[in-house]
Amino acid sequence: MSNGHIVIGEIFGTAVLILLGGGVVAAVTLKRSKAKDAGWVAIAFGWGFAVLGGAYIANGYSGGQLNPAVTLGVAIKTGVWHTVPFYLIGQLVGAMLGAVLVWLAYYGQFQAHLTDPEVVAGITADPAGPVTARKAPGGPVLGVFSTGPEIRNPVQNLATEIIGTMVLVLFILTQGMTQGLALNGLGILLTALIVVGIGLSLGGPTGYAINPFRDLGPRIVHSLLPLPNKGGSDWSYAWIPVVGPLVGAAIAGGLYKLAFT
Amino acid sequence: MSNGHIVIGEIFGTAVLILLGGGVVAAVTLKRSKAKDAGWVAIAFGWGFAVLGGAYIANGYSGGQLNPAVTLGVAIKTGVWHTVPFYLIGQLVGAMLGAVLVWLAYYGQFQAHLTDPEVVAGITADPAGPVTARKAPGGPVLGVFSTGPEIRNPVQNLATEIIGTMVLVLFILTQGMTQGLALNGLGILLTALIVVGIGLSLGGPTGYAINPFRDLGPRIVHSLLPLPNKGGSDWSYAWIPVVGPLVGAAIAGGLYKLAFT
Amino acid sequence: MSNGHIVIGEIFGTAVLILLGGGVVAAVTLKRSKAKDAGWVAIAFGWGFAVLGGAYIANGYSGGQLNPAVTLGVAIKTGVWHTVPFYLIGQLVGAMLGAVLVWLAYYGQFQAHLTDPEVVAGITADPAGPVTARKAPGGPVLGVFSTGPEIRNPVQNLATEIIGTMVLVLFILTQGMTQGLALNGLGILLTALIVVGIGLSLGGPTGYAINPFRDLGPRIVHSLLPLPNKGGSDWSYAWIPVVGPLVGAAIAGGLYKLAFT
Amino acid sequence: MSNGHIVIGEIFGTAVLILLGGGVVAAVTLKRSKAKDAGWVAIAFGWGFAVLGGAYIANGYSGGQLNPAVTLGVAIKTGVWHTVPFYLIGQLVGAMLGAVLVWLAYYGQFQAHLTDPEVVAGITADPAGPVTARKAPGGPVLGVFSTGPEIRNPVQNLATEIIGTMVLVLFILTQGMTQGLALNGLGILLTALIVVGIGLSLGGPTGYAINPFRDLGPRIVHSLLPLPNKGGSDWSYAWIPVVGPLVGAAIAGGLYKLAFT
Repeated sequence: MSNGHIVIGEIFGTAVLILLGGGVVAAVTLKRSKAKDAGWVAIAFGWGFAVLGGAYIANGYSGGQLNPAVTLGVAIKTGVWHTVPFYLIGQLVGAMLGAVLVWLAYYGQFQAHLTDPEVVAGITADPAGPVTARKAPGGPVLGVFSTGPEIRNPVQNLATEIIGTMVLVLFILTQGMTQGLALNGLGILLTALIVVGIGLSLGGPTGYAINPFRDLGPRIVHSLLPLPNKGGSDWSYAWIPVVGPLVGAAIAGGLYKLAFT
Repeated sequence: MSNGHIVIGEIFGTAVLILLGGGVVAAVTLKRSKAKDAGWVAIAFGWGFAVLGGAYIANGYSGGQLNPAVTLGVAIKTGVWHTVPFYLIGQLVGAMLGAVLVWLAYYGQFQAHLTDPEVVAGITADPAGPVTARKAPGGPVLGVFSTGPEIRNPVQNLATEIIGTMVLVLFILTQGMTQGLALNGLGILLTALIVVGIGLSLGGPTGYAINPFRDLGPRIVHSLLPLPNKGGSDWSYAWIPVVGPLVGAAIAGGLYKLAFT
Repeated sequence: MSNGHIVIGEIFGTAVLILLGGGVVAAVTLKRSKAKDAGWVAIAFGWGFAVLGGAYIANGYSGGQLNPAVTLGVAIKTGVWHTVPFYLIGQLVGAMLGAVLVWLAYYGQFQAHLTDPEVVAGITADPAGPVTARKAPGGPVLGVFSTGPEIRNPVQNLATEIIGTMVLVLFILTQGMTQGLALNGLGILLTALIVVGIGLSLGGPTGYAINPFRDLGPRIVHSLLPLPNKGGSDWSYAWIPVVGPLVGAAIAGGLYKLAFT
Repeated sequence: MSNGHIVIGEIFGTAVLILLGGGVVAAVTLKRSKAKDAGWVAIAFGWGFAVLGGAYIANGYSGGQLNPAVTLGVAIKTGVWHTVPFYLIGQLVGAMLGAVLVWLAYYGQFQAHLTDPEVVAGITADPAGPVTARKAPGGPVLGVFSTGPEIRNPVQNLATEIIGTMVLVLFILTQGMTQGLALNGLGILLTALIVVGIGLSLGGPTGYAINPFRDLGPRIVHSLLPLPNKGGSDWSYAWIPVVGPLVGAAIAGGLYKLAFT
């Protein structure tokens, strides 16, 4: 695969990942959505099938890594590092594009939610305060874009993200993939389902970024979008879903080299 | 495949699609159904497995497109247009047939629902008013047949349908299918699951038609059926789930030609 | 496959089908079950994975038909009728065995449920009355064994069972199976998922038997088991989930012969 | 596969199994988790995808048995017993490691839950009393680690565990596996889904250990961890989820030898 194909594949794939992933959080948490309050099962399956969509569409061009943590783990496994920048560029652009698409698809719901007197009162009172919409990964509206912890504690939050990402990357590395993650359809399905599983099982404390750009890209978009009463973008937390997944991927890559080769 | 096979396959497949898809909305929203209030997760999986059933049954004869948007996308990709009319005929007939079958399967529930004093009061008071049964794609009873928006705004509703259909058609086009969508069982399963994902993630604003005849065929049937107190068929909205998916499919087809070939 | 293998395979497979299928209804409806009130999504997936378990275990010996309606459809398609009695014997024995296993697995829950003063009052007041536990396919306890309609109307209930079974049998016949339903693992998975879909979409009115012995076998066991305060076995309804599925299978077989060959 | 590979594979695989399995119970039952009260469907799918993750990661090295009951069934089928100790060592170490990882991932939630005045009052009042958090397999906190019955009755609880494990082991044995359970990806997926099914259908009475070390390993960890107000580890029940699954596996192995060979 050429570097151009990698960039194109990752842009398309990561955009679909974030569109469907952010979309399900919008669907479940925003007012005037038909799926309002559909719960955590909906969110976990929504993110899993977001991986299915993104990885499948990207597969022919870039293998569909869609995640700097996966890219890091694959690079550690294969020793091939020169394509990494092209993966990262595509992933960040795609993640931001996907977040904009979520906003377009749910434009009316965002407006309705953010101008609702009750919501506005809660947000403006304490934009960085404790999350009250407990079932969304993050507070109202920001949670559609980025993750946030239920209990704010950097060490604990890092640990949760490290552990979740370790499972994901170890799963992918043991698929016997070559550099380009030449997944077939079944491999993509299994990866999507393990993402459902990680969400169900390890998403409770932090809303499971397990992907640096899945969190950072949409957070940038959140800070730029002209949403009324949107509150802050919680930048003080933003480093955790970047560092945690990368550390988790590095550990998984190391464990793989140590134990499985 | 012959033109006759295409028509037969699409009739059977689209009938099953609408039977199971409309069926799950009936199951979740009509009074006296055992699945009443089973929620959005049920609806999204129900529609996804409706695709599984319809596409699988149609597969040997027509490839199981079941959707004018998919047919448009495939025609753009392959440049083969002369079979398109046969796909469309089969799809429209099948969609109407499926809607009639939903009515037969849920005959008692329709009667019980539409003669319930509480329901009648709500419907007759404001047949085109705001949807109160928030978890169904559309208002009571009409929602079993056709989609309807939570927030009525043509531009926003079009945008949502365009975006959702883009994901679907891009997914199908990148499956490396040939003209007839010669899917194997795994490809059908993955397509069914991405439809679950689109429903979970992008269904919140409009109830996700992402298929012109999935909406139009049953809406025609709704207008014809002798249902008591059924209210209007909301024809003012009917063009959106036709135009939106076609535009989305055209964009997806164009993007595919531009980026993936 | 020998006739002995067919009988053994169908006994094992149908026993697992009913154990897991009846089990999920017990899990969701009986008092003192951890899964109490898990809802219709649980029931539909539970029955689908019951098909997965039963068909997979039976597959090597009998193909895993587990259902007289499927056996009828296959016989119409293939013209092979001499093995039909062996399938039926295995299926009926297996269905009864499975129902006994449900009783053993949930023995404590049955006792707790049926001696609960509130439950007893409801059941003994009107054993054949309207179902109040709306989310179970059938009333309390009997619903663990057999199906029952939400609205009791023979013509409507027959229509629902006919339509649901048509989808199932058409799905199976178009799988290009040979006489023994030589499914591979993927075919079994898809069949299990379409059963989930039929449950979600068409289970609302009657609780979807779509299988004569799935209903009859456990109903016989219900009438024989020494359950306290169990109420009647609702024999007046028992012919519908036998006749409906057989008619549906015959129509599906005929349609297959007419349209797909 | 070497004995070292077996131990390594089983440690990794069982650790992931328990991490995701225990994790989903923590997610659904502990206070301050985003998935709080997501219900039994979440738990059943969470445990199933835990099997997917663990079996997939272990597959290349040990086949991914992850369960002494499966190991026993396979040994009965194949007659190969000399690798059994290596499977068991890996499984017990992995199960304990996984339980520690759950504690690390949910550290904050455990602290918040166990220092909540309401929770403390309930636990300290009657540590071995009736379970009130009905939807978790076990009481609060201990249920994250080990199973517990809704109705405490050794014979009934044993029967439930025996029946559930029989289904699991019979399913695995009829997959035509060789000694090392050389599953392919599809086989692992089907096994994961049947575990979802067993959870939905047979998990109601005891919370379905169906795996001796899945229960024993985390129970040991529970007894050792410095959790505040954690209550007892309910050792009086601990033998049931060990003996029941082994008996069930032995019966399944015997039935397999008797009926399927």
